[in-house]
Amino acid sequence: MPRWKPDARQRLIVAALELFAEKGYDDTTVAQIAERAGLTRSTFHRHFADKREMLAAGQQTLSRLLAEGITAAAPDATPMTAVAAGLERASMEMTSFNRELGPLMHAAVEANDELKQRDASKSTGMAAAMTHALSDRGVPRAVAQVAAELGVLAFKTGFARWVDPARDADPGELAPLTRAALDELRMAVTELR
Amino acid sequence: MPRWKPDARQRLIVAALELFAEKGYDDTTVAQIAERAGLTRSTFHRHFADKREMLAAGQQTLSRLLAEGITAAAPDATPMTAVAAGLERASMEMTSFNRELGPLMHAAVEANDELKQRDASKSTGMAAAMTHALSDRGVPRAVAQVAAELGVLAFKTGFARWVDPARDADPGELAPLTRAALDELRMAVTELR
Repeated sequence: MPRWKPDARQRLIVAALELFAEKGYDDTTVAQIAERAGLTRSTFHRHFADKREMLAAGQQTLSRLLAEGITAAAPDATPMTAVAAGLERASMEMTSFNRELGPLMHAAVEANDELKQRDASKSTGMAAAMTHALSDRGVPRAVAQVAAELGVLAFKTGFARWVDPARDADPGELAPLTRAALDELRMAVTELR
Repeated sequence: MPRWKPDARQRLIVAALELFAEKGYDDTTVAQIAERAGLTRSTFHRHFADKREMLAAGQQTLSRLLAEGITAAAPDATPMTAVAAGLERASMEMTSFNRELGPLMHAAVEANDELKQRDASKSTGMAAAMTHALSDRGVPRAVAQVAAELGVLAFKTGFARWVDPARDADPGELAPLTRAALDELRMAVTELR
């Protein structure tokens, strides 16, 4: 049983992911998603233009939060400190709803080539958003790119640990996990040669 | 006029990219690709199972070459030297056909959301292949991930410069460009802090 009280938007997302895992993304209709969620099509369309937008919305929010955190970092922050601020900002917004969505999302992605592509391209979108935010701070292009890639890796690693069902019943907040992952990567960089 | 003599496989790839840019990926059929290339459907199927495979084939080859170069690097090579060997291996296989495909590929990807997704997920596949090859050399996970991401960035940057129509008429070989891009990123790493 979920520990969150799902609102209409959350029920639609859960219903969609369940159906994507069961029937595949292509064969799932908006009508079916609404029905599974116990809602009407017009309620669906109050929240999302179509099923494609359901997936894009979360990705865009995540990219926006990462960039916002970078932009809001202290003016004299190093590129990696700015990236850490981006991770913090995005991590703080992730609730238990996001965490409990993890396994559902995983099942849907595994079941479906189209969703695998989208999942992979999410990383590219996150990296682009962070590179852009760092460039706006005056960070040279190549440095911004590397820092952004480390940020994406850290977020994905921290998130994967957070939603891993094999781990503790309560992993607590996401932020310490993405922070630890970023620290590991910063250490790794010193071992590259 | 292309400087390469296209064989059937190459003609099919060029025809497909032209049609993807003109009509979109979804609305292009195998029959249309074969017709544009002046070949039969059965010739198409001697080279590719379907249009989806046309795109996947190039990506898989690239990932394989990168991994092969890493695997073949000297046993005592550092992670970054192994990555450089991977880039070298893949770059050496890129011919003027690949270079002249660049603008066509770009036009097709820009015209089409499905292809944008695929293009983005290509980076993920390359990174995964290189991370795997590095891990097999005993490189710790986090170090392998970072080195692989730098390798992907370097390959993409070098390739983009290679195919850029705004640059010199003859950019020469790809290998020096990916090598230079990797060197830039290694420098950038020292500026991260």
